[in-house]
Amino acid sequence: MANILIIGAGGVSQVATVKCAMNSEVFTNITLASRTKSKCDAIAKFIKERLGVEISTAKIDADDTDAVVELIKKTKADLLLNVALPYQDLTLMDACVKAGIPYIDTANYEHPDTAKFEYKLQWAKDGEFKNANTMALLGSGFDPGVTNVFCAYAQQNLFDEIHEIDILDCNAGDHGYAFATNFNPEINLREVSAKGRYWQKNDKGVGEWIETEPMQIMFKWDYPRVGVKDSYLLYHEELESLVKNIKGLKRIRFFMTFGQSYLTHMKCLENVGMLRIDEVEHNGVKIVPIQFLKTLLPDPASLGPRTKGKTNIGCVIRGLKDGLERQVYIYNVCDHEACFAETGAQAVSYTTGVPAMIGSMMVAKGIWSGKGVFNMEQFDAKPFMDELNKQGLPWEIIEMKPGQRYEV
Amino acid sequence: MANILIIGAGGVSQVATVKCAMNSEVFTNITLASRTKSKCDAIAKFIKERLGVEISTAKIDADDTDAVVELIKKTKADLLLNVALPYQDLTLMDACVKAGIPYIDTANYEHPDTAKFEYKLQWAKDGEFKNANTMALLGSGFDPGVTNVFCAYAQQNLFDEIHEIDILDCNAGDHGYAFATNFNPEINLREVSAKGRYWQKNDKGVGEWIETEPMQIMFKWDYPRVGVKDSYLLYHEELESLVKNIKGLKRIRFFMTFGQSYLTHMKCLENVGMLRIDEVEHNGVKIVPIQFLKTLLPDPASLGPRTKGKTNIGCVIRGLKDGLERQVYIYNVCDHEACFAETGAQAVSYTTGVPAMIGSMMVAKGIWSGKGVFNMEQFDAKPFMDELNKQGLPWEIIEMKPGQRYEV
Repeated sequence: MANILIIGAGGVSQVATVKCAMNSEVFTNITLASRTKSKCDAIAKFIKERLGVEISTAKIDADDTDAVVELIKKTKADLLLNVALPYQDLTLMDACVKAGIPYIDTANYEHPDTAKFEYKLQWAKDGEFKNANTMALLGSGFDPGVTNVFCAYAQQNLFDEIHEIDILDCNAGDHGYAFATNFNPEINLREVSAKGRYWQKNDKGVGEWIETEPMQIMFKWDYPRVGVKDSYLLYHEELESLVKNIKGLKRIRFFMTFGQSYLTHMKCLENVGMLRIDEVEHNGVKIVPIQFLKTLLPDPASLGPRTKGKTNIGCVIRGLKDGLERQVYIYNVCDHEACFAETGAQAVSYTTGVPAMIGSMMVAKGIWSGKGVFNMEQFDAKPFMDELNKQGLPWEIIEMKPGQRYEV
Repeated sequence: MANILIIGAGGVSQVATVKCAMNSEVFTNITLASRTKSKCDAIAKFIKERLGVEISTAKIDADDTDAVVELIKKTKADLLLNVALPYQDLTLMDACVKAGIPYIDTANYEHPDTAKFEYKLQWAKDGEFKNANTMALLGSGFDPGVTNVFCAYAQQNLFDEIHEIDILDCNAGDHGYAFATNFNPEINLREVSAKGRYWQKNDKGVGEWIETEPMQIMFKWDYPRVGVKDSYLLYHEELESLVKNIKGLKRIRFFMTFGQSYLTHMKCLENVGMLRIDEVEHNGVKIVPIQFLKTLLPDPASLGPRTKGKTNIGCVIRGLKDGLERQVYIYNVCDHEACFAETGAQAVSYTTGVPAMIGSMMVAKGIWSGKGVFNMEQFDAKPFMDELNKQGLPWEIIEMKPGQRYEV
């Protein structure tokens, strides 16, 4: 039915590609391409051995728009799934516009030098996608991605009006290292050393972004099937689109769990300058400290086989239904070892890679369609929610008492 | 009277050279030489401006024995004071043997790759110094150095028999940085991440070295004029010679203070591999992590002007006098800001640099003399102790009750 070109060959790609191959009635042709073709070949071999499905692989420089256009034409791809670095979002979007095929990604564009996450440059391509008679689906991972769909589902099915959203992201996995990061350490480390930010309406009903110091706001949240974890307020990219698309919203915040030991390592590394992203002269060579740290730390891909425990990511949503206050908690619990057994990658990759495949499926089947650039919550959530239950990310809803807080 | 050649131009050299210049009736000619001549010139300028004394400077590679012999001949030096890196002890000793002049240093030889502190290779040169009709005085800093002299003074003047020695090294200075090391960070960091070791006689009266995990043994000691500080058992090089030279000893230990924040930084840096001394391949370049850390951290020399607070280093000595138990605490308290005002370097450099000068003075005046290789405690302590009081490191003795412990 659909011919998909997947760009990138990290942990998320491993999961997304395996999951596409597991849905080969939809994804009848799969090409996996990245800068390092051997990584693609390793994933192809895994799929061949585990599922008996043949996929194609190719070498591609995702920064080179023309080369990507050529590859799209050569493979006759119907859609492109970008699971490469977020640095490549813009060039890959340009390639899709030129080739006239849909674009799907999992994380918004970031300029390598500024560490600034925002949709601005991607949303600005709305006109180009319209002109090309095709679409871009942005942020089809878990958060952003599933969290946006949870909110859309609540808006479409559970509430008349949504007032408050708290997105709660817990990774209770234990890899047994004193310190390691679960995905690209450069992005991971920058995220937690950045200032926090949330959005709320002031007394005059005007929405405002409120900045906090890094890790300033914390509460202990009791995560179903995981337990009580310190949860810190961070800025996270889905806030930007949800503020725009969830009408009536009065406040939205994002929280992520971090252990005390992780934060202590971060702080010490920051204190000695190891999180610096500028070049430092050392014995006549220019070294970017955070990149050298990345070299020293365990490869995130190596954590898969040794990570135990669960993730729990979801949304607590408060608002009105039939004139009464309502509060629900929609979440998914994912087990690291089960994910690894199924796809060869742990839950952090799994929770991003599965929704990447489902988003691609929504587009490939024409269930989600349009012209221009879209975020997840702009579409009908139900078919995506149904697929989550089928594809390994089942969700649960707890009806909380209005005013009830899960915080300990 | 004496013509001294000083090798090395770091913080200790700054103090030792200034102090030699302050004693110009003894050190009538001073030449300061190091790999980087501009550092020597800066110290010379400081001395000229502050004391009106002219000293000579030279460029030297301390690893090149022949070049050092040539410089000794050219300057007609009567003795050589080594305040360079401990890696250079052996080549400089060889130069002194060849030139037939006394050698003085402040820290024992260390092989750059092994981080092993021991006197073996330096003591092995005893015969060469005897044949050359001259002497080497090893470890004339504070610890080793003054601590050895305190022990010798106690043995010669205060006790009939010494049974236990605890050397207590407290630096309560605050430089205002979240993390920085007070001298060469490479040596500093290795010291505290190494296993601890102390010496005691077992039930059969046989002396044994007992190894501990790094930072395993800690007690809180109440340092006079400083206060209560966490003090950790470390191995320190003066233990090796004191065990040999203090007769009747039953136990000797060394403790150093470290703040909790310092140790936490150390542990985190160790956990991520930043204390590694092997080469790591990064973007095609070989980088030694601890050396890159050194590049990132504040230059120890830059701490001088901003360090406040005091050091307190001394020895608690227990034994017998006239058939009765006796316990004394001999120590010096040094103020960082006062040291900086006098010499342009803070107390950590000051407490090493002043004894380096005094040791050189003992040799230059012939008060301490001999043929071969010597440690500090092998000579008459009294004249050295008198100079400490004159040269800025006055000492105090507390007569403690037998059995009294200062530990909190």
